[in-house]
Amino acid sequence: LAKHTVGLIGGGQVARSHAIGFSSIPLFYGSQITGQIGVVAEATEELASAAAAKLGIPRWTSDWRTVVSDANVEIVDVLTPTYLHKESAIAALEAGKHVICEKPLASNEADALEMYEVSKRSRAKTLVGFNYRRVPAVTLARQMIQDGRLGKVHYIKSRFMEEWGGPAFPLTWRFKKAQAGAGALADLGSHSLDMVRFLVGEPKEVSGMVSNLIPERYPPGEKVKARSDVDDQTSAILRLDGGTIAEVSASWVAPGRKVDLGFEVHGSEGSLAFTMERPNELDYYDGRDPKEVQGFRTIYFGPAHRYGSSLLFSTPGMGTGYVDSVTNQMRDFLEAIESDKECSPTFYDGWKVSRLIRAILESSEKRTWISVE
Amino acid sequence: LAKHTVGLIGGGQVARSHAIGFSSIPLFYGSQITGQIGVVAEATEELASAAAAKLGIPRWTSDWRTVVSDANVEIVDVLTPTYLHKESAIAALEAGKHVICEKPLASNEADALEMYEVSKRSRAKTLVGFNYRRVPAVTLARQMIQDGRLGKVHYIKSRFMEEWGGPAFPLTWRFKKAQAGAGALADLGSHSLDMVRFLVGEPKEVSGMVSNLIPERYPPGEKVKARSDVDDQTSAILRLDGGTIAEVSASWVAPGRKVDLGFEVHGSEGSLAFTMERPNELDYYDGRDPKEVQGFRTIYFGPAHRYGSSLLFSTPGMGTGYVDSVTNQMRDFLEAIESDKECSPTFYDGWKVSRLIRAILESSEKRTWISVE
Amino acid sequence: LAKHTVGLIGGGQVARSHAIGFSSIPLFYGSQITGQIGVVAEATEELASAAAAKLGIPRWTSDWRTVVSDANVEIVDVLTPTYLHKESAIAALEAGKHVICEKPLASNEADALEMYEVSKRSRAKTLVGFNYRRVPAVTLARQMIQDGRLGKVHYIKSRFMEEWGGPAFPLTWRFKKAQAGAGALADLGSHSLDMVRFLVGEPKEVSGMVSNLIPERYPPGEKVKARSDVDDQTSAILRLDGGTIAEVSASWVAPGRKVDLGFEVHGSEGSLAFTMERPNELDYYDGRDPKEVQGFRTIYFGPAHRYGSSLLFSTPGMGTGYVDSVTNQMRDFLEAIESDKECSPTFYDGWKVSRLIRAILESSEKRTWISVE
Amino acid sequence: LAKHTVGLIGGGQVARSHAIGFSSIPLFYGSQITGQIGVVAEATEELASAAAAKLGIPRWTSDWRTVVSDANVEIVDVLTPTYLHKESAIAALEAGKHVICEKPLASNEADALEMYEVSKRSRAKTLVGFNYRRVPAVTLARQMIQDGRLGKVHYIKSRFMEEWGGPAFPLTWRFKKAQAGAGALADLGSHSLDMVRFLVGEPKEVSGMVSNLIPERYPPGEKVKARSDVDDQTSAILRLDGGTIAEVSASWVAPGRKVDLGFEVHGSEGSLAFTMERPNELDYYDGRDPKEVQGFRTIYFGPAHRYGSSLLFSTPGMGTGYVDSVTNQMRDFLEAIESDKECSPTFYDGWKVSRLIRAILESSEKRTWISVE
Repeated sequence: LAKHTVGLIGGGQVARSHAIGFSSIPLFYGSQITGQIGVVAEATEELASAAAAKLGIPRWTSDWRTVVSDANVEIVDVLTPTYLHKESAIAALEAGKHVICEKPLASNEADALEMYEVSKRSRAKTLVGFNYRRVPAVTLARQMIQDGRLGKVHYIKSRFMEEWGGPAFPLTWRFKKAQAGAGALADLGSHSLDMVRFLVGEPKEVSGMVSNLIPERYPPGEKVKARSDVDDQTSAILRLDGGTIAEVSASWVAPGRKVDLGFEVHGSEGSLAFTMERPNELDYYDGRDPKEVQGFRTIYFGPAHRYGSSLLFSTPGMGTGYVDSVTNQMRDFLEAIESDKECSPTFYDGWKVSRLIRAILESSEKRTWISVE
Repeated sequence: LAKHTVGLIGGGQVARSHAIGFSSIPLFYGSQITGQIGVVAEATEELASAAAAKLGIPRWTSDWRTVVSDANVEIVDVLTPTYLHKESAIAALEAGKHVICEKPLASNEADALEMYEVSKRSRAKTLVGFNYRRVPAVTLARQMIQDGRLGKVHYIKSRFMEEWGGPAFPLTWRFKKAQAGAGALADLGSHSLDMVRFLVGEPKEVSGMVSNLIPERYPPGEKVKARSDVDDQTSAILRLDGGTIAEVSASWVAPGRKVDLGFEVHGSEGSLAFTMERPNELDYYDGRDPKEVQGFRTIYFGPAHRYGSSLLFSTPGMGTGYVDSVTNQMRDFLEAIESDKECSPTFYDGWKVSRLIRAILESSEKRTWISVE
Repeated sequence: LAKHTVGLIGGGQVARSHAIGFSSIPLFYGSQITGQIGVVAEATEELASAAAAKLGIPRWTSDWRTVVSDANVEIVDVLTPTYLHKESAIAALEAGKHVICEKPLASNEADALEMYEVSKRSRAKTLVGFNYRRVPAVTLARQMIQDGRLGKVHYIKSRFMEEWGGPAFPLTWRFKKAQAGAGALADLGSHSLDMVRFLVGEPKEVSGMVSNLIPERYPPGEKVKARSDVDDQTSAILRLDGGTIAEVSASWVAPGRKVDLGFEVHGSEGSLAFTMERPNELDYYDGRDPKEVQGFRTIYFGPAHRYGSSLLFSTPGMGTGYVDSVTNQMRDFLEAIESDKECSPTFYDGWKVSRLIRAILESSEKRTWISVE
Repeated sequence: LAKHTVGLIGGGQVARSHAIGFSSIPLFYGSQITGQIGVVAEATEELASAAAAKLGIPRWTSDWRTVVSDANVEIVDVLTPTYLHKESAIAALEAGKHVICEKPLASNEADALEMYEVSKRSRAKTLVGFNYRRVPAVTLARQMIQDGRLGKVHYIKSRFMEEWGGPAFPLTWRFKKAQAGAGALADLGSHSLDMVRFLVGEPKEVSGMVSNLIPERYPPGEKVKARSDVDDQTSAILRLDGGTIAEVSASWVAPGRKVDLGFEVHGSEGSLAFTMERPNELDYYDGRDPKEVQGFRTIYFGPAHRYGSSLLFSTPGMGTGYVDSVTNQMRDFLEAIESDKECSPTFYDGWKVSRLIRAILESSEKRTWISVE
């Protein structure tokens, strides 16, 4: 069993999902590869030791530089708030580590570009946490589009809607532009922008509109509200080559939408539709079916599909979810390291998404289309 | 049985739906009111007599002025291609007739405004054919929003997607900007824009992008392609007061979407979702339900709802469709005439939608937001 | 326009649907044929004149024999409570009339058989009101099965679930075995039994269990409860040739199920699923599709399908419902009269369903399987 | 971290799911408890060492008695073909071990009863592998029924339909009655029978019908077919107290149904519907909602629900599946051991299901209802 040692910078909920992902590879895939978390850094000794206890990690530290300089650590996994990504990710790259970094890559485009450029000069692998690319339904959607099953793609609606960000939600760093870069657009919309690039291609021009619907929130534990200066919902139109249009929506104030990372794609020959709320299903319409039996068909995932061997049985539809996409991601990343192959999404993809976020914010402010060519 | 005599200008498929709508009122509602089509005008004698035969209309003419000047005609119903609406509708208003006019009201905003202004000076009732307002699920959605069930509305996605407009579809007047005003945006998007206004309110500013995906088509019966200068799909973002956003999409090249006039509305307290493909259902999420049993509920329509008495039995869910919305519309219009009450959507609403279409086209061309205040 | 004169015996809600059905044929189909209701009989003069007023019928009577002997009446349409069918239907047949009769054909098998035998000796057309056969999705399902698309059929689940029959519903004739024959089994289950025969074939043996869940109800307008001796829900298993199994369920105490006449059919090569709550959709699974894109596809109905020309436009999915199935039924029946062809379901089918109802009741009582060969 | 040592008897696919389940407890729940597999037995040394390698188990054996007598083993997990359960499970109980046993408990009722009686005399905990009880949606369904939200339950449809058992599937032990007890009825139907008991209660009387649709299959690796003497599909009606009816269906020849373990429950006040194909959703109809907004609501699972803390975030709907139900089961079982509390389903429940299977087979053969009181 090839064990790759991982050092975590950040020990919260995403850390837990990465810990599960790394450790699940052998039993889910029968793959002789795994990631073992050797050390975790958190802001304080207390937080760090609690995270270590919770996740079963042998060592902990309140100084992230300890992780970066640890000779046993092969992969540094950066899971801090967005504005803290750059310093540690660049330090890790410069220390010769492979680097995983949460999305969005940085809180502004300039930082994201700098991170990407440092990564270009290193021989390390980078990975940005757009995990939904590895939900089997999303992976199949891309494959079908690339195989030409939809013909020429005309349109994609790519959305990410959740409901938790109402007025009662506290003023954490996600609600501060300087730290998060943007609100729902950065947290959720970054995934939807990545979907557009992953499934259809590179946008050329954007128009967007942000809405700061809840301008004041209570800081955690406080009784006086303070300013939230980010978008609670954002809508954007992106123009690609040849008249192809992407509509992107992000919202954390969408009642009833639990984890509606979804898309609908129209091509000249067919269509696809997906939502993460039904992660095990992809709806596909083949315009070449005989007229009298045409209709969207609901594909369930199993052994016939990529990542399907992670399912337990020869029965499709046994259920997949967020965690499974993380396991799939970590396996692909570790295998890329072992075979020294590319493993997208890299910091390049992270930078491209940050660029789109910046352009949408600029468009909303200037009330004009912004080129991103 | 109060019979109102209607004169049709135009005898095609929509004429058939109006004929069914007028004649169905008594049996569906037990209402002592009906519309009786007395005369139909078409472009030629041949077309006119064929339409009369098909729809069981006693008289026909190739001169629409005959309809307008017919003393027996109380209501003129204008169902011609869009660019022909203005002349006959204004003539009918000036002849003292009530006027029904297909959507969009005109092929440009100036004509629509002129039609509205003539109607303001007359005592006639006007109706523009936004029939989907009277699908019971849509009617309930508006009622629920007005009753405050959703709290403050933040967002509406309003779309109309169909699949029939691929390259094989011939170059009829709908594909010529001078005659239709726009493409999918005018034909389908006008309904979606009306939905935004009907459900949520008046947009203030728009950004849009049109795509002319199939720039050449075969004129009917011809073997050489000619230019189609309209949008096959359009996306737009509309800003309303208070950060409320409307996303509008129209497409006639959406494989698998049969009649996906749909919307999703998010408010501070709940959400609604609808598609005309399941016309008998409205999905409603009540954010105030107890957490453990929260979820979108699928409401079926029946006697408990407006227009529900048109259903045959005390059983909800017996099925409703396009035709029923037309019957509902015609009943309301005839009752408005009898009681001399307002019956929206009037030419005012028709003008407002034409204004939005114009602004979206302008925004797409100038790559900037356009105010419609 | 060929007008066939119909005499109604019974003027309630089903009469209304038949009136709509007959009168809708020309405008929905452009068919030069229609049924015109010339006279209606009801239990009293008052009821009869009210029905005539409501449905726009020129003559009325409190003596059904007047309808049967009326020389102008070509078709007698029997819409009375079940136990009253036999006398008037047989009299009509003997008077040389074509006869339509509501389902179930009679309140016991012997009466149904007698009615069928009289019909065999006459040259009249008979029709029993299993209207759901003519919902386009059901018609297509049968066609697909007959074309072999499912391979050999192994299984059908055929159910009819509604929710209205709770304790508050009054003790009408439907809740009395002597008059209705059975409860939910006769009212709703008769349709489901007809579906089994229409789609898959003739059952040979049955086992059933009835549940009289609400043994006492208030007679209309009374304050003392009286006995209801029928089933509120019934489940049955039917064995057909070759190990094929039909499961039949009927219930009028199924909360949330509005008009869930539904089925699921499994064959060796594919499956079908339908519910009347989404009357415009048929789900079809083709086991021969490539593994990676296999899934139930949702077919929407339109011009490509039988009865599709009744829709207004070349757009599928504009909506169909109960009334449309009645219109389709009446058109087929009138055309069968004109062309002197068979038009199922006839009294033969009515008898066969009554036979199955009798066998299920007997099985439930004797706790044993009952042969119906 | 409290580690409980488990010995596996059987090392196939279910063993893998149990290995995942035991090892996932700490990271999914933050629970300081885990199961550690110390030894695995398989039929041969070769199979045993392969299973140990695949699942990361330190020791292996070809003699299951070694597992039973291993002093370090606290829990014996019996995962062999059904006819082999009894001997090893009883030996394990007699050796003082806690015992987990796959479903159905035994290949005939007598063996199941004997296993239950031995367990009664021991102080060990027993668990039979009806894992679907611990899908959060199923757990909530039972809670809602017990809390009276549905009122009095009248009806349950409980089905388990899959598609893999067509003629190409080889003649393994599951297709031999002597070894498996029954076909689809034992493999899948046992879960559905357990659902009836778990959700609604104890059946009193059954009528069933089995279908042996594919009477010959190829033994693995052979070219001459041999006899399969089990049901490929089975339908049964079960009567409970008070007229409550359960319909149970099992099939492994249901094209398109991937893992359709599903149910629909009707009570006097509401209804529930579920399918494992959408494991993260429960549909609930509250008959007491106001008429105009009544409808089935789709509940997504998250922190508000039992087992919801195993999800990573405060976001419901992140996805759950088969494996998660196993993790939940193992956690509950280990906690029951630590606290010496009951943990259903025990061998008692396993026996009760075997009894129902026996009665359904007998009913099908004798063509009569069979009492199970």
